[in-house]
Parts: sequence; structure tokens; C-alpha cells
Amino acid sequence: MKSYRKELWFNVPSRRGFINITPNIETCLKESGIEEGMVLVNAMHITASVFINDDESGLHHDYEVWLEKLAPHEPVSSYQHNYGEDNADAHMKRQIMGRGVVVAITKGVLDFGPWEQIFYGEFDGRRNKRVLVKIIGE
Amino acid sequence: MKSYRKELWFNVPSRRGFINITPNIETCLKESGIEEGMVLVNAMHITASVFINDDESGLHHDYEVWLEKLAPHEPVSSYQHNYGEDNADAHMKRQIMGRGVVVAITKGVLDFGPWEQIFYGEFDGRRNKRVLVKIIGE
Amino acid sequence: MKSYRKELWFNVPSRRGFINITPNIETCLKESGIEEGMVLVNAMHITASVFINDDESGLHHDYEVWLEKLAPHEPVSSYQHNYGEDNADAHMKRQIMGRGVVVAITKGVLDFGPWEQIFYGEFDGRRNKRVLVKIIGE
Repeated sequence: MKSYRKELWFNVPSRRGFINITPNIETCLKESGIEEGMVLVNAMHITASVFINDDESGLHHDYEVWLEKLAPHEPVSSYQHNYGEDNADAHMKRQIMGRGVVVAITKGVLDFGPWEQIFYGEFDGRRNKRVLVKIIGE
Repeated sequence: MKSYRKELWFNVPSRRGFINITPNIETCLKESGIEEGMVLVNAMHITASVFINDDESGLHHDYEVWLEKLAPHEPVSSYQHNYGEDNADAHMKRQIMGRGVVVAITKGVLDFGPWEQIFYGEFDGRRNKRVLVKIIGE
Repeated sequence: MKSYRKELWFNVPSRRGFINITPNIETCLKESGIEEGMVLVNAMHITASVFINDDESGLHHDYEVWLEKLAPHEPVSSYQHNYGEDNADAHMKRQIMGRGVVVAITKGVLDFGPWEQIFYGEFDGRRNKRVLVKIIGE
């Protein structure tokens, strides 16, 4: 069994944002030389997500509105976590969108359906944060 | 390390529905001959889910009502994604229910608690869609 | 490829609660002797979660309030699943928080960011319930 590990760094200039990281993961996969196996991609921070969905700007706008409705940032004081912090909502949003994904690797490529793309979802940005890529297989 | 891959096709005749795919996954596991490892089961489409919960019709009714409350289909025009499409809500529902599951394989069977069953969750049906089954182990 | 399996038992004395199980998983990892690979940690019951987030009591209070708002326990009769049962809301809460997590193992330790901790999330407690730990790697 072979294994591969890499950290990817991101700095989203606003509080929230989505970045398509599929090309980064494809680069990692090539570096790994692994043909059959699984790749785990996860946010290493607990106010961010890695998820798979559509690379469509209208949908990303809708996600922003929807997540803000389900877990509003304001009023900041409504959360007990926000004692010297203001990111409790980000911990909620990350649970809905998920910590990470596991993707099958088949014949050396990400084994995806027609529209699947991997995103880094930032909910408390404006600082350097990391994504972990771990691949196991042969 | 051995690996196994299969696509399962489904066509849910209504917009939304849940299908118990546990027997399909058990068949894949037998075909694979893998005794110890992990199986990844994921929707290959971004308006569908694979999740684990109870095979109980009352609960499935409750999920339908609950998901429609958290991410309503109507009004279709409230979503920017719905420009020539009407499935933005399906992209939301799928995030709550999840893209897929990873299940342990022990002694050649799905290593499940007493009530765990694997479901395909369709949120934009009436067409052929796929689930990926990838197994790695020995 | 090596594999390791263990069941962890918990009994949360109230209906809902969160337990930091990171030390338990670290003990499993040491027992396994696996240096590179992945660990799957999942609730074996469908009214409980395993998730990764912050070990901060204010946040746990906020999760409790938030989940109760998104999937209220009362009125019990509003759920069709609650025919001789009262835990439909627990099946919803578990979907938001997730069934389980996959964590990378690198150089014999859980490959975590600075604040990541693994929690058992109980939504229908006051009885013995299990978490499965499955590790594969080398």
C-alpha cells in the first residue's frame, strides 16, 4: 500500500467564500502515483468545509443565502461561543456543508460523475488556513 | 491491496424518493471478495445523496417534510441557480443528507449496527442517475 | 495492508450530549500499530453522530440550541415516525451532524489541524450505544 500526504493553504480575503480546488487535488493525485484507492480531502480548521457540488456561481450565491438563513452570523451575541470570538455561525455552517470528502481513485483519476467538483468552503476567512490531502492505494 | 468498482443506476419516477440499496452493496461486496477494508458509496450526481439511516416509512415521510422546510423547492425563482433549471433546492437537500458514506468491512460483511441501512436519496429524479461503489482492502 | 476494529460503548445519562472521544481513538490507533492509513469512526446507531469540531462548552450549548431549532423534539406528534417512539428529531439531528468521520493517519498519529477533536453526539441517550473504529493501512 502506498500513501501520500499534502497540505494546501488558502487565504480567502472575505469572511466567506468558495474555491474550486479540484485542479489542486488532481495535481496531488498525479504526484502520488496512486492508480487505485481513495483520497481524503478535509479542512484542517473547524470553521471551514470541503464538499463536492456544482461549479456554478448562481448556486454559490444561493448557498451563501441559505446557510446564512439556517445559521445566521448576526446577532453575534446570540451565541455563547462568541465570547471574545464572532465565528459561532461558521462552526454551524461547516457542519451542514461537511468537514471533508472521500473520493474514489480509479485508473489514476478522480472517479467523478459529470458535474462533481471539490470545493473549499470558507466561513471565517481573512487568514491562512489549510486543507489536508491524504491518498492511500496502489 | 485489492480494489473493486461498480456503478449502480437508478431512475426514481418522482422528483424525490429514497431507495434502500443495502442489498446492492452487499452483492458488490461479495463480488469483490474483500474481507477487511472499507467501501465508499457515493452519489455521482450533485442533486442526490447516499446516507445511512432507518428503513421506516414514517421516518422517510418526516425527512421529506423536514427537508422541504429547510430547503423549499418553491418559489423556484427565489434561487439564482434556477435560470433555466428548477433544482437549486435539490443541491441544498443533498448537502444536509450528504454525498456518500464510508462503511467498514469486517470478515466479508458490512460492519453495521442493528438498524443501519444504506439509502439512495433522490432530490431531482425522473431520469437515470448513478451511484459509485468503490471497495479497497484485502 | 493491516486492519483493526474496535467497538466503543457509551451511555449518555440525558437525551442529548456530546463526548470528546479523541483519547479513545488515539488509544485504538496505538493498539493498531498502523503508521500510515485512514481511520473510520462512526456511530453504529442511527440517532447518534460522530463529528469533528471544537471542544468548547459554549459552542456545545450553541449546537444544542441550534439543532433543536432546526429539528425540534416537540411536538412529538408532528412526526409520523413517532408511533410508539419519540426520537424522530434525533434521526434529523444526526443527519446534520453526520454519521461519522474519516481521519488521516500519518506517522502513527491522527493527522489533525490545531483544534480538531472527535465527538460522539448523542441525540437519544439514556441507554448503551456503540461507536465503531475501523483502521486500515500499514
